[in-house]
Amino acid sequence: MTFTEKLTSYLEADRVRNAILVVILFNAIILGLETSKSIMAQVGGLITFLDRACLAVFVAELAAKLVAYRTRFFRDGWNIFDFAIVGISLVPAAQGFSALRALRILRVLRVVSVAPRLRRVVEGFVTALPGMASVFILMALIFYIAAVMATKLFGGSFEQWFGTLGQSGYSLFQIMTLESWSMGIVRPVMEVYPYAWMFFVPFILVTTFAVVNLLVGLIVNSMQDAHQEESVASTDAYRAEVNEKLAALEAKLDQLIAAQKD
Amino acid sequence: MTFTEKLTSYLEADRVRNAILVVILFNAIILGLETSKSIMAQVGGLITFLDRACLAVFVAELAAKLVAYRTRFFRDGWNIFDFAIVGISLVPAAQGFSALRALRILRVLRVVSVAPRLRRVVEGFVTALPGMASVFILMALIFYIAAVMATKLFGGSFEQWFGTLGQSGYSLFQIMTLESWSMGIVRPVMEVYPYAWMFFVPFILVTTFAVVNLLVGLIVNSMQDAHQEESVASTDAYRAEVNEKLAALEAKLDQLIAAQKD
Amino acid sequence: MTFTEKLTSYLEADRVRNAILVVILFNAIILGLETSKSIMAQVGGLITFLDRACLAVFVAELAAKLVAYRTRFFRDGWNIFDFAIVGISLVPAAQGFSALRALRILRVLRVVSVAPRLRRVVEGFVTALPGMASVFILMALIFYIAAVMATKLFGGSFEQWFGTLGQSGYSLFQIMTLESWSMGIVRPVMEVYPYAWMFFVPFILVTTFAVVNLLVGLIVNSMQDAHQEESVASTDAYRAEVNEKLAALEAKLDQLIAAQKD
Amino acid sequence: MTFTEKLTSYLEADRVRNAILVVILFNAIILGLETSKSIMAQVGGLITFLDRACLAVFVAELAAKLVAYRTRFFRDGWNIFDFAIVGISLVPAAQGFSALRALRILRVLRVVSVAPRLRRVVEGFVTALPGMASVFILMALIFYIAAVMATKLFGGSFEQWFGTLGQSGYSLFQIMTLESWSMGIVRPVMEVYPYAWMFFVPFILVTTFAVVNLLVGLIVNSMQDAHQEESVASTDAYRAEVNEKLAALEAKLDQLIAAQKD
Repeated sequence: MTFTEKLTSYLEADRVRNAILVVILFNAIILGLETSKSIMAQVGGLITFLDRACLAVFVAELAAKLVAYRTRFFRDGWNIFDFAIVGISLVPAAQGFSALRALRILRVLRVVSVAPRLRRVVEGFVTALPGMASVFILMALIFYIAAVMATKLFGGSFEQWFGTLGQSGYSLFQIMTLESWSMGIVRPVMEVYPYAWMFFVPFILVTTFAVVNLLVGLIVNSMQDAHQEESVASTDAYRAEVNEKLAALEAKLDQLIAAQKD
Repeated sequence: MTFTEKLTSYLEADRVRNAILVVILFNAIILGLETSKSIMAQVGGLITFLDRACLAVFVAELAAKLVAYRTRFFRDGWNIFDFAIVGISLVPAAQGFSALRALRILRVLRVVSVAPRLRRVVEGFVTALPGMASVFILMALIFYIAAVMATKLFGGSFEQWFGTLGQSGYSLFQIMTLESWSMGIVRPVMEVYPYAWMFFVPFILVTTFAVVNLLVGLIVNSMQDAHQEESVASTDAYRAEVNEKLAALEAKLDQLIAAQKD
Repeated sequence: MTFTEKLTSYLEADRVRNAILVVILFNAIILGLETSKSIMAQVGGLITFLDRACLAVFVAELAAKLVAYRTRFFRDGWNIFDFAIVGISLVPAAQGFSALRALRILRVLRVVSVAPRLRRVVEGFVTALPGMASVFILMALIFYIAAVMATKLFGGSFEQWFGTLGQSGYSLFQIMTLESWSMGIVRPVMEVYPYAWMFFVPFILVTTFAVVNLLVGLIVNSMQDAHQEESVASTDAYRAEVNEKLAALEAKLDQLIAAQKD
Repeated sequence: MTFTEKLTSYLEADRVRNAILVVILFNAIILGLETSKSIMAQVGGLITFLDRACLAVFVAELAAKLVAYRTRFFRDGWNIFDFAIVGISLVPAAQGFSALRALRILRVLRVVSVAPRLRRVVEGFVTALPGMASVFILMALIFYIAAVMATKLFGGSFEQWFGTLGQSGYSLFQIMTLESWSMGIVRPVMEVYPYAWMFFVPFILVTTFAVVNLLVGLIVNSMQDAHQEESVASTDAYRAEVNEKLAALEAKLDQLIAAQKD
């Protein structure tokens, strides 16, 4: 057993996995405490130290995995996921780029890559996506068209909502979620353009219908997968086998009856 | 028939169950009337007396059940449920702790433990929960990560919404339900942090997608259960019939073979 | 053929049904025009006359049906429905009771009782209801308990929302539909009672879960009905028949083979 | 091979389809850039020219198709769709009718008619519609009745929401989407008409229930289609196999019977 093989079996041991899981959850608490100003004022140094210690564990784990798996490391999507998440934390946050510091909490997502059940749920989510690609493209198309139209039609008078393509896209997303669509946006717009409802009501109907179709597609796919998994095939095999036996038996019976009659 | 057996059969009689149900519903009306100031001003003494009388009936019933079932009493979840609900009413409400008094209305939930059909519905709800555990854990993870990020990113300028982890969690729950998410929260936030939508729009998409997957999982599970119940019965009947025929044929065959050998 | 039989066959003729349908739709337009002040100012007399003429047709039709069917008339739910709707229009509206006049438009609902396809849809809705009775009772229970609690806990400080049981019920219905639940109601309440979210967030989760279960139940029931209707039974019959034939044939074949060998 | 045949095969070649797709997407970008004032100020002339060039390509393609297919052209719904969309762009926009200019972006919808996968999704949407016709008619009926009632009951005091049939219809649509229904509309109305909730709450329940039934119908239909496709194939295979076996056996039987008779 080479050193690489030993390392691999060590990294894949349940004991090590669970230890990593504990470090992730401990790190999650540490990062949660970091949001409290009073706690940071009292024991800020300790918390920063513990956070760095957790990060060191993750870096060490990834380095060990890289040594053990070499190029195979990057063939598994979850490894790349871990690598990217830990990598973000190592980028030194410049003074004016504090958003990067907030991304460190994403490390907690490593729970998903470590816990097999959560992994399967996320993989289920991801595998459901390609089947919905057509509807997504259609939605993107509808949004782009609607954003261009809204910008041209209402951009002049309602700069804050429909001034640019981006603002229109955001406003239309808000309208699609039905949040304050009428009282907040369409009624004010209708005071300037009385026929604005002829644009917004069909937009709501079409996008809602598309979302409903996404949902229906998701349900039908899940149902078919579940149905397939069920033992329909094994039941059919059972019935076929039984019927075969039945026929063979009846045949022998008749054969014997005939022989007896002679 | 011992005294314990008599008591058990008496407690489980339909007549007694229905009487308890009537007391619960009567208590529900009494507690409803208690919310009216004008009624309390006129006949407050009577209402308080009737409420205490109902409570006395419940305590007597529970005591009888404890005597009848002894330790078996606590093996049924519904008994513990009744015990807890009645117990809350017996805790003397201190002056400054009036919330406890409001919990007395929870006694009406005993309708569920008494009426078998409602019991089955609630049991159906509860048995559906474990199958959704993975998605719940994932949701909790997403909420925790998002709450930490929101607190760090927006807590400085929007103390009332994202000042602490708890406030962020509440605000994110509000955003997940799509209530005033844009007009009420994200648009004001975007005036200070123009790229805030890059945090909130993905959050909405991810949580909505997770909720949709919960729903799809629930539908698929219910459908499979219903399908199983329906088709397993017919399959079992078919298999039994076929096996019977096979056995009968084999018996005749053996009989004839024996006859021919003579 | 007696007069009654003639009348029955006349009333059930497609020609008469369609004529009634035309009168209903014409009446719908008349009642729609009545909402316009300018039209009423110009041709109000004509519109009132036409409305009364339509009503006269409906009364005549119902009278004819009563003569033709006698007591059988009230055995069909749709006849009672028509009777009630036309009856409302005949009640003379007192000056201060103008709401009754607005109910005249309900006559248009007679379209449903006349058009068989719409009738079937509504019958489908109605037959779906009993299966959901348990969940409805549970919802009513939750609403009653929550209304009593909300009135006791928040009624003192928020009279306009939770002052009485009725107001609490309405506010909770609004919260269940997620309309302005946080920005409009719970955030203001939390300024006085900081722990109010411990009441409202579980309320939202429980009622949403109950509604989702209603939906799931509806889908599963519809699916099972549809599944039942499918020719599963006929397929099984076909397979059984074929297998029987197959066995009988193979038996005769073996019999012949045996006879030939002799 | 005539000129018409050559033209047809040329128009249906993948190469030409893809070229058209590229032109559509290029046109989409051009029309998107047109919404930016700063870009139009700099290179407005170029963008207008490129837009016209794209339009010229579409006109040329349609003309070629008309020549190639002649009257058959109008038998395909997608051709009529393309024809209408390109036609709109050719109508000269009068000064006061700028909405027509905004409709030019609809040209991007041609992506759907060119990409077969998107085409199938849209065709799936459209074929789902007739099955929901009854519920749609019922919804229209409910909306008409509710609009007439709301106008009569609340039109006097709330002119901006329920002044005319049209305004009532729009407000009821808003209420059906649950947007600000209570805080925005029903609570203010209830200050004048305290029993207004007796109109609005049932309206919400009925329309929500109808929408839920639409959704359930859609799911059940999709599921049945999927189920049919899946199981009909396996059933057909089974039947064919069994029939083949039966025929073979019968043939051998007849052969043997003939031999025995000799």
